[in-house]
Amino acid sequence: MQLFFVAKKISPGQVFALSELDYKHAVRVLRMQVGDKVETVGSDRVAFSAKIISIDSETAQIRVQAGDTPLQDTELPVDAEIICGLPKREKTEWIVQKATELGASKIIFFAASRSIMQWRPQQVEKKLQRLQQIAHDAAAQSHRRQIPQVEFWPQLLKSLPQEGLNLVAYEEVVKAHEDHALVSAFAQLTPQTPVIRMIFGPEGGLTEKEVADLAAQNVRSVGLGPRILRTETAPLYFLSSLSYAIELLN
Amino acid sequence: MQLFFVAKKISPGQVFALSELDYKHAVRVLRMQVGDKVETVGSDRVAFSAKIISIDSETAQIRVQAGDTPLQDTELPVDAEIICGLPKREKTEWIVQKATELGASKIIFFAASRSIMQWRPQQVEKKLQRLQQIAHDAAAQSHRRQIPQVEFWPQLLKSLPQEGLNLVAYEEVVKAHEDHALVSAFAQLTPQTPVIRMIFGPEGGLTEKEVADLAAQNVRSVGLGPRILRTETAPLYFLSSLSYAIELLN
Repeated sequence: MQLFFVAKKISPGQVFALSELDYKHAVRVLRMQVGDKVETVGSDRVAFSAKIISIDSETAQIRVQAGDTPLQDTELPVDAEIICGLPKREKTEWIVQKATELGASKIIFFAASRSIMQWRPQQVEKKLQRLQQIAHDAAAQSHRRQIPQVEFWPQLLKSLPQEGLNLVAYEEVVKAHEDHALVSAFAQLTPQTPVIRMIFGPEGGLTEKEVADLAAQNVRSVGLGPRILRTETAPLYFLSSLSYAIELLN
Repeated sequence: MQLFFVAKKISPGQVFALSELDYKHAVRVLRMQVGDKVETVGSDRVAFSAKIISIDSETAQIRVQAGDTPLQDTELPVDAEIICGLPKREKTEWIVQKATELGASKIIFFAASRSIMQWRPQQVEKKLQRLQQIAHDAAAQSHRRQIPQVEFWPQLLKSLPQEGLNLVAYEEVVKAHEDHALVSAFAQLTPQTPVIRMIFGPEGGLTEKEVADLAAQNVRSVGLGPRILRTETAPLYFLSSLSYAIELLN
């Protein structure tokens, strides 16, 4: 069922209009009709099934009526942010799409020491807009209740907040056979933990200096299993295992 | 460190030659030299660090000497197979690459009811060869101890073996809030379980009939968390959570 994010809160049974952009998508692309059901998500992340009650091509407006009971929440119980050394080529798009499906609340790219790809300051806004659209579409398709924010940090250490649980995926931990760090980190999460973040290196990995600088800011190194994961795969392992640990296991 | 799969068992300290294909890759692409260290994996899945002791361009032979102690195993403790309804376009390549990084022992594509992409019988061999090469390269890059096999099943039910633990990812389970099925399935794994398999629908999902036919063959429906995952993402959630459950948690 098609999902639309709405810019305000929705109440049970409420009648409201979709945005003009959503009107265009619903009518011209999806060819939706009066009587069709959709999912609508309010700005407070509460979602309702809704029925199309009118389509007016003169005013470019679709009006829907929300159902009586909210739909289930589909968000992770904790905000999970992935912070990725800027990878090559279209991997940024792939990461944003997959991380959104898997529940990330924020997807941050940063200029890592070994990042081959670089974003000049004047390019950043346009690139983020494109990635933000990908996040929007993926959030709708995976029936999220919020659209993850995509950001770019020219300098990781300056931008990394101290509150929350900060982790870095570092394969040297794996080689030392110390592979319980991720389990311990997840075990520390409580309903009061505001956010869990994991930092990932680009192709070529993080430098020893980058990891040491992060350790000095209390960022804990963890392994993601015994196999080496590519820069675009590691965040998916993190988000999937987080979901398994805190949504499926209790 | 570059990894090479070798067609026989390796003993500690043994001197042996790499294959001709690996010679070409090592010398022409990687420009390796005498004294360089590599990883070598024997046909019994036991790996050794090895040092290049000679490079002979006349005979196209690289000889290496294995170290004294085997390297750690990097394979999942159980064989894990993913069985994917044939997806569109290049997703087959993505799935093979990522599933190999994440530890799959076999990657099977099948002709699902809703598969838009179809493989005619005369195309299958060539497509599988290409995918097998991708599996080989990904297995080397992620430091696996075996190369996953890639297969194609024209008919799922006829080809699905009964031994082992067979699961199907079916989002209707999610909607019914019965989300402990995956945890229960993982809890059933013992060192005697030969294999765990999960079946995934293509874009558009499995039909009710396909799921009913699978249930009649004792294939259990499980959910993969509350968010809808694309056909190429769901197998990665399965393999990541399996790794987390049986490699990181104990």
